[in-house]
Amino acid sequence: MADQPSRGLADVIAASTAVSDIDGQAGRLFYRGYDISQLAGSATFEEIAYLLQRGHAPSRAELDGYRDEITAGRAPGALVTTCLAEVASRQGPMEALRSLVSLASADDPDSGSNHPAANLRKAARLTAQQPVLVASYHAIRTGRDLTAGDPGLGLAANFLLQITGRPPSAREAEIFDTCLVLHADHTMNASTFAARVCAATLSDMHSAVVAALGTLKGPLHGGANEQVMRGLEAIRNAAPADPVAAAGAQAAARLRAGEKIMGFGHRVYRAEDPRATHLREMSAELAAASGDATYYQMSRRMEEAVFAEKGLYPNVDFYAATIYHYLRIPTEEFTPVFSVSRMAGWTAHIIEQHADNRLIRPDSEYIGEAGLSWTPLEDR
Amino acid sequence: MADQPSRGLADVIAASTAVSDIDGQAGRLFYRGYDISQLAGSATFEEIAYLLQRGHAPSRAELDGYRDEITAGRAPGALVTTCLAEVASRQGPMEALRSLVSLASADDPDSGSNHPAANLRKAARLTAQQPVLVASYHAIRTGRDLTAGDPGLGLAANFLLQITGRPPSAREAEIFDTCLVLHADHTMNASTFAARVCAATLSDMHSAVVAALGTLKGPLHGGANEQVMRGLEAIRNAAPADPVAAAGAQAAARLRAGEKIMGFGHRVYRAEDPRATHLREMSAELAAASGDATYYQMSRRMEEAVFAEKGLYPNVDFYAATIYHYLRIPTEEFTPVFSVSRMAGWTAHIIEQHADNRLIRPDSEYIGEAGLSWTPLEDR
Repeated sequence: MADQPSRGLADVIAASTAVSDIDGQAGRLFYRGYDISQLAGSATFEEIAYLLQRGHAPSRAELDGYRDEITAGRAPGALVTTCLAEVASRQGPMEALRSLVSLASADDPDSGSNHPAANLRKAARLTAQQPVLVASYHAIRTGRDLTAGDPGLGLAANFLLQITGRPPSAREAEIFDTCLVLHADHTMNASTFAARVCAATLSDMHSAVVAALGTLKGPLHGGANEQVMRGLEAIRNAAPADPVAAAGAQAAARLRAGEKIMGFGHRVYRAEDPRATHLREMSAELAAASGDATYYQMSRRMEEAVFAEKGLYPNVDFYAATIYHYLRIPTEEFTPVFSVSRMAGWTAHIIEQHADNRLIRPDSEYIGEAGLSWTPLEDR
Repeated sequence: MADQPSRGLADVIAASTAVSDIDGQAGRLFYRGYDISQLAGSATFEEIAYLLQRGHAPSRAELDGYRDEITAGRAPGALVTTCLAEVASRQGPMEALRSLVSLASADDPDSGSNHPAANLRKAARLTAQQPVLVASYHAIRTGRDLTAGDPGLGLAANFLLQITGRPPSAREAEIFDTCLVLHADHTMNASTFAARVCAATLSDMHSAVVAALGTLKGPLHGGANEQVMRGLEAIRNAAPADPVAAAGAQAAARLRAGEKIMGFGHRVYRAEDPRATHLREMSAELAAASGDATYYQMSRRMEEAVFAEKGLYPNVDFYAATIYHYLRIPTEEFTPVFSVSRMAGWTAHIIEQHADNRLIRPDSEYIGEAGLSWTPLEDR
């Protein structure tokens, strides 16, 4: 018999996983048993993608092999290349990624197989291609040629090169790499859960990733980082005498009016989101280096106001926004950047789902009218 | 605190819905309070799509308006048209539909809005376009021009016309229409649930439908009807002296060997799937009219063998297979045909999710190693 309903499945265990774990009380996040506070700044995104997808920290030789796979897998396939310009000029960033990854299955040599080895190869290719798809989209939207990739760069540095058109400094690349590490997985978030529901019918990895991309698109999930930046921009563009004071005052006023502020609070954390702790530090560093720390200072003031009013902590989206801004990533690409990182986690969860599968098919509670009698149209 | 895990969320209530209800003990299925046994043969697919999406049985005037919307909405948009030939020639049927519906959002005039009225219009267009996408795909794959649609025909008859290239008889159209009615919704099946998980981030209807299409693609879900037919074809193509006896013997032997037989059993029904009851009758009728009832007789014999061995009833996929065969629908289009019908239910559930939304974000149980210490690469 079915239990009482839980709206939004809050606190319902939907799956067992060895990919990641959250201690919401203590504010800790673990990737395969490693605390992300140990990983931030110590591990590259490629090491973390390997760890998540393959289950253990790579040896130097394993990592070299994986990096080669990533570098070799960057080029989009023929069907994506054929449709890219039309798709990019007609669809928004997340719609386009949804379409392009769906098209990409046509040219993946392992497309027809859910075999564990095939899934690992597909996971590496999807991880490799996602930043190139995002940069290619942006190049088309801004009417310029895609900056050529540099096979000598890691995924994070190469993405910054391709999306901004200029080589990042070593420290910029390092900070962005850490951002990718911090966003790589987060247990049963909505997009990952959608991917697992899809994969649990034994559908393929591309279908599951496409489901995840469409889910990440939603403003209650991946869309939040972009909204944080738009909110900061709107306050500053109104040209108040003191934008920092204005940011704090507006946040307090909106909370008192019963509105929500994007970038704060999280269903699973009772303490500060550990990712926010690291992101705040890096945002401060980039702000200082940029010579214009206004957006960072506005964020800090908002954080203070929100905590004073509601006791809410910033989540992963809040300081990611200003970091990406200081790294010159266009605001409309913030959610796509989230997908570049989360691809590592999505693919790891799909691999795990396929390896020990059971169809995910919940019940529902019927709340409509019952026992109605159908009157044929001619008598209505 | 989280409860004990339920593998696959079996018996966990994931959402409240007024769209459909199942009485698994009695083997009954209801659409908005109407028993499908009243609807089968009495209501057209357009009436049911209207009922599911808009919540009440349409008046004659409302139905006329909805039919006009469906007829007007058939033509695929510009981006789909641009990419159609490339996509169809490079991707499998369900992959192509996933891509094409993703592309279709570009030309939907309500694409940016989740407003209830916008969602209703999008639901009608998605319902109208899906059969045309399936027929267009098949035309390209078989190297012929798409048979022109007939605005005077309903959705079911027009689809049969376009996919087979010849006008269906009135009774064929009626039977196929009833098949679409019977497949239109089924509470929290995996694809519908994926659509709701996606929509619950306040992502858009196209994203949620694309997630559903990728989920339906899986052999444990929409892929089953095609596998039923492939199984029947394989037995018959081996040219046994008595294909009917061979079908029964093979089913019994496979069950004794611990194998599963597609098209039997269902997580939520303890009695016969009420859809199967109706489909069996229609399959018998078409078989008799076709002059070669072999596949129907093979199915009956398999059904008897499976019930004798395991006490399992046929589900919705089992007799749908032979019906579609007798209607000359190509076997590789069986799962796409499922999507033509289920589009009505998916869109209804997305509308319902958006109307009273809460993010769907379950918990997970961590089963991996804990408390590991990260060794930097240079020390590994």
